[in-house]
Parts: sequence; C-alpha cells; structure tokens
Amino acid sequence: MVFLGVDPGLQYSGFGVAKKEGPRILLLDFGYLYMPSTKSIPERIEIFYNHFVTLVQKHQVKTVILETPFLGKNAQNFLKLGYLRGILYLIANQRQLKIIEFTPRQVKLALTGHGGASKEQVARVVQKLFPKLTVPKKADVTDALAVTLCGVWKSNQL
Amino acid sequence: MVFLGVDPGLQYSGFGVAKKEGPRILLLDFGYLYMPSTKSIPERIEIFYNHFVTLVQKHQVKTVILETPFLGKNAQNFLKLGYLRGILYLIANQRQLKIIEFTPRQVKLALTGHGGASKEQVARVVQKLFPKLTVPKKADVTDALAVTLCGVWKSNQL
Repeated sequence: MVFLGVDPGLQYSGFGVAKKEGPRILLLDFGYLYMPSTKSIPERIEIFYNHFVTLVQKHQVKTVILETPFLGKNAQNFLKLGYLRGILYLIANQRQLKIIEFTPRQVKLALTGHGGASKEQVARVVQKLFPKLTVPKKADVTDALAVTLCGVWKSNQL
Repeated sequence: MVFLGVDPGLQYSGFGVAKKEGPRILLLDFGYLYMPSTKSIPERIEIFYNHFVTLVQKHQVKTVILETPFLGKNAQNFLKLGYLRGILYLIANQRQLKIIEFTPRQVKLALTGHGGASKEQVARVVQKLFPKLTVPKKADVTDALAVTLCGVWKSNQL
C-alpha cells in the first residue's frame, strides 16, 4: 500500500509518498513542486496535473491523502485551492485511487496527541519519526508529510 | 472561431457552443450535463472532464468563456465550484484554448444594457436572439448561453 499526501498550493505544493511494510513506514519520496507566478493559472494547473500523474505512476500510489481546507481571509485563494483539489480528484478517479481527507485538527491530533498543536510541534514529530530526513526547505513539505503519516496510521483503523 | 460558454455546477452544468460567421452567430450546440448526487465527487469530476474534452474536440472549440464566481453563503459549494473550474482550465491548457472571464455584471450589461438585470430579463434576450430555441429546461442552459453570447460579442473588442 503506497500513500501520497499532498499539501496543494498554486505556488508551492508539498508532497510525501510513503509505504507501509508491516509495522514500518518507508518514506519513498517527498519534496515540493514549485510553480512560478509568472506562469498563468491554466499553465500551472497542467504542470500540477502532469507532476502528480507521473508521481502516482512512478510509485504505484493507491491512496491520496488531503487536508480539508477552510475558508481563510481570501476567498479567491480558497477558490484557486479548489482548482488543484479538483485536479487531484480527477487523477484519483482516472487511476482508481482511494481518497482520504482529514481536518487540520485530526492531523495535529494524530501526530502530536493534541489537536491544537503548533506547526512547529507537528514538524518536530515528523523530524523525530524520520531522523535521516534533512529539515525540508519549505514548510509545505513538512505539512504534506504530516498529512501522509496521519493517513498511513488512520488507514489501519478505517 | 468557435466559443464554448460554461456555467459549471456539480449537479447541472449548462453549456453553449457558438460560432461567429461574419455578422452572424450560429448556435452549434447547447444543453446541460447532469451528474446525479449519488455519484461521488471524484466520479463527477471525471465525467465532467470527459464530457467537455469530447465537446471541445467535436466542435473544434478555440475559446472557453466563464463567469467569475463570487463567494455565496456556502463556502464548501464555492470550493467545489473551484474543482470544476480547475478542470476547465486544465482542458483549456491541454488543448491550447483561450479563456475569457466575465463578471455576472458584465454579462448582464452586455445582454440587456443593464448590469443589474434579472435572470428573467437576460433569458428573454437570449430567447429573442435565438427565436428557434425552445425554452431550455434548465436555467443553467440560459445562463451558459448568455455567457457564450457575451464572449462572442466582446471577443471583437478584445
């Protein structure tokens, strides 16, 4: 069972790919996709689509894990996040992948035991679980890894 | 030049396909895509993608016309609308189509001469312009036709 956790964004999208082998969790891949703001939204959407189609094929991903977004201060950013989520749903249905979603609170709770944990506390747990992991350059990567881990753990209980 | 106007929705998506031939506007196709709520969101997104890819190919569409959405009472519906817009952007970039967007006010103004016109006033103008058109079953179709017409007219000025 291979899991892909994504923290989508129109500029930086973090991702983590993990495999469950008995009690162990192997981290197969992680990083971020950068899409410069000089590119148009439709261009970025196709780059995003192609990137994740390739990643899903390469690692034979079976489950996609996402965090439920909440409306922030900027409604247009919320809508644009919808564009990328729509693309992930499309890929999931085209490749017959399962989709699991968690609220930010569920992710924090699963990782730290506390639903109101800070981003730093979550990052520390991710770092502890993968000690060989060099500190990711972008917080988006840590966020995606947290979502990935939450999905791998919860999938046992689902 | 073939134009596709879309009024996307997770249950009903209206569309109109029109061609400009000199001073005339030919209506090539119109209707709506119905996606029952018994289907999952990822399933509906793939149906939507396949439907519009087929429509674009069939009519050799060169331009997609959309209405800018505004956040209503339901933030989750707004996000879901984003899923479908993301799919249309993907298709547009994959097929090298141009995208034009108008605010609801611009569409109403173009059709009726009044930015605050009611849906009924807009529908009456659409009906007058295409007298052979039987009254569409769904308002989504009329909305999509209004967006299409607005795009065809404005494209001369752009």
